Amino acid sequence: MEERVEMKEIKVGLLGCGVVGTGVVRLLRENSSIIEEKLGARLVLKSVAVRDTGKDRGVDLDPGMLTDDFRQVIADPDISIVIELIGGCATAREYVLKAIENGKHVVTANKALLAVHGRELYEAAARSGVEIRYEAAVAGGIPVLSAIKGNMAANRFGSVLGILNGTCNYILTRMTEEGADFAAALGRAQELGYAEADPTFDVEGIDTAHKLSILISLCFGTWVAFRDIHVEGISSLTALDVNFAGRLGYRIKLLAIGKRDGDGVEARVHPAMVPLTDPLAAISGVFNAVRLTGNYVGTVMFCGRGAGMEPTASAVVGDLMAIARNMLVGVGRRTAPLGFLDENIIDVPIKPMAETVCKYYLRFSVVDRPGILAKIAGALGENGISINSALQTARSGSEAVPLVIVTHEAREMDVGRALEKIGTLEITTENPRLVRIVDEL
Amino acid sequence: MEERVEMKEIKVGLLGCGVVGTGVVRLLRENSSIIEEKLGARLVLKSVAVRDTGKDRGVDLDPGMLTDDFRQVIADPDISIVIELIGGCATAREYVLKAIENGKHVVTANKALLAVHGRELYEAAARSGVEIRYEAAVAGGIPVLSAIKGNMAANRFGSVLGILNGTCNYILTRMTEEGADFAAALGRAQELGYAEADPTFDVEGIDTAHKLSILISLCFGTWVAFRDIHVEGISSLTALDVNFAGRLGYRIKLLAIGKRDGDGVEARVHPAMVPLTDPLAAISGVFNAVRLTGNYVGTVMFCGRGAGMEPTASAVVGDLMAIARNMLVGVGRRTAPLGFLDENIIDVPIKPMAETVCKYYLRFSVVDRPGILAKIAGALGENGISINSALQTARSGSEAVPLVIVTHEAREMDVGRALEKIGTLEITTENPRLVRIVDEL
Repeated sequence: MEERVEMKEIKVGLLGCGVVGTGVVRLLRENSSIIEEKLGARLVLKSVAVRDTGKDRGVDLDPGMLTDDFRQVIADPDISIVIELIGGCATAREYVLKAIENGKHVVTANKALLAVHGRELYEAAARSGVEIRYEAAVAGGIPVLSAIKGNMAANRFGSVLGILNGTCNYILTRMTEEGADFAAALGRAQELGYAEADPTFDVEGIDTAHKLSILISLCFGTWVAFRDIHVEGISSLTALDVNFAGRLGYRIKLLAIGKRDGDGVEARVHPAMVPLTDPLAAISGVFNAVRLTGNYVGTVMFCGRGAGMEPTASAVVGDLMAIARNMLVGVGRRTAPLGFLDENIIDVPIKPMAETVCKYYLRFSVVDRPGILAKIAGALGENGISINSALQTARSGSEAVPLVIVTHEAREMDVGRALEKIGTLEITTENPRLVRIVDEL
Repeated sequence: MEERVEMKEIKVGLLGCGVVGTGVVRLLRENSSIIEEKLGARLVLKSVAVRDTGKDRGVDLDPGMLTDDFRQVIADPDISIVIELIGGCATAREYVLKAIENGKHVVTANKALLAVHGRELYEAAARSGVEIRYEAAVAGGIPVLSAIKGNMAANRFGSVLGILNGTCNYILTRMTEEGADFAAALGRAQELGYAEADPTFDVEGIDTAHKLSILISLCFGTWVAFRDIHVEGISSLTALDVNFAGRLGYRIKLLAIGKRDGDGVEARVHPAMVPLTDPLAAISGVFNAVRLTGNYVGTVMFCGRGAGMEPTASAVVGDLMAIARNMLVGVGRRTAPLGFLDENIIDVPIKPMAETVCKYYLRFSVVDRPGILAKIAGALGENGISINSALQTARSGSEAVPLVIVTHEAREMDVGRALEKIGTLEITTENPRLVRIVDEL
């Protein structure tokens, strides 16, 4: 007589089934044998809560599995792990807190939720003794958060730098490769589904800043107030500046930058010129990259697909498997959400942007008259800013021409004062353009 | 009255204290507060076993901690985790097996040991219910093994590609950037301590093949016989071929290549031309990189320092922390050494090199006479190999000149036959050079 050993099952509930949710459903099906060969157990999707149960999601779901009652899924005693893929803050926060309170482990891809309400959620998870994991919230399929909490955990991190928004990187890549202006590149991104109808969250850097706040907490063991992060997007970049960047040996990327700085941290999101020789310059299209420096590991870079159905599903199911591994050895909680024990995470101030030091690309529109460069250089010099190089290409008589100046390292505050002074000289025909240069490798 | 809670201690024993061991000692000291803030426990190095206790290791060690009795450390009931940094196979195997038998968890950086005896060690660890971790064995500080077993675990991997030996990559970088020949570049690497006095293991690709066999087992859940891996090193590369590579838009790297292929795998180590536009081409000097493709995560690349005291120590202590996290929640073993449960790992054959298909760079030394190209092209064509481009630069009368041919995709066996035929034609003055082209991105 054949004996059949029943494989252990871990039941999962899914809240929200848009693009990523559909990916999770597909992955759990398509790769079920791989997952079972590793866990010795089955991850079983029991319920999927969606607002509209009638909508076609491009994946077959047993009608008995679909429900529009989110609270029922959260309350189901059969379900051990809840995946939150609703997005947004208000409802998601309520459901996640309730799931945690009910003793469910939580996996989420919701960066906005974590950036704004992370602390409250982590504290709730600690009280309930459950895990909350969120690898998919930053850089999609790239397992960078797990690496920071995991094998690189012994390091004191000095900095984290990232290209974290595929929409922006796609737009910047088109602007660079085709000389397109922002509006045209955005339009193309929207046609291809890489940008939303309302692209504000992406192109104004907010999504990147949400991700940065998560990376900073993980790397440095600190809370930062999201509202204090300096955030600039890419919508005011011009084709002309993208072109000058190339001629100067740079490429413009939207960077998230976090740095330890004494007792505080630098936390900023802005377009930056990176040298063409920097591997970050080669991260094209919808790809993401994260570069970290730790005091032992040195510089490590990760790159891959930062968004999309399948990479994001990979990160979500990876988190499910990590929780399942705990459950299978009878453990509720093995690692605190930020790697550091909750009681060791401290509040730190974000260094004011005015005190940041870097090199600057400045472009002035000037009427081409003798003595203009001297006046501009004078105003910079008065504020302690020295010039690395100046570039003036066209001579066109009475029309305004671009004058580009690349500075040595200078303090943001001093640059602001110099530009203010230059504004009063009546030698420029429009506001100067400024792009920071990030060339530490 | 102040109450003082004693922090829990986990005792660690170290076998071998060369460069990496010294790094581990330093890291545990310098970053002890970071480690404690994450674990809520202390990692305490209790004993260090070395052959010569009198040797200066550049780090202060309490004399009471040093011993030349390796067996005493392995037997110490106080010690929970043994770190093996002896290197080599024979002694290391004996000590690791004994430590496992004694119920110790093991952390090792020993790729040769794992490539040759991994299966035996993993089986022993399963019997004893302990963990054996080895992140430092592949790509130094880059946490790629943890990522494969961890957050990317839900994927079915299709391929793994790596630059895994810093010595070779340093030599190739110098050959590329300075036009140096192999011997000169090797000499420089030896002066700088990047290459051993006997560099065979590194430059002949053996170290890379050890690491590849580990990556293949982790990615595909398979055992491969190390002796069946096709291994070619870089010692026969010439400055001329490195130069031609650049002119054709490629850079030569020593690649480790693992691919799923039906029921078998491809497993090969050889110099390869990669396109300059491939991020792998930008991995310079002693840096390492690993690129993986999974059926959900897509293509992910990791790069960083692949060797050296500090990055390797980062990986070793990261492993210690992972084991400590288990111990702190009362768990002996949470993840099998290869991610897959031991019983699900299968033996698979390595696809014979003769059946491999790729594009080829072929360089012939020919006497420049009319009809030579036709003869060579004829021999290639007879064997089903079509030519993508041919390049003949110099005309020098009676002396031999290089004739370079880049083929379309061809089978290794057919290329071998064509070269054999060409050898019989008495039109070449030395054996042809062959470098495979790897341009799948």
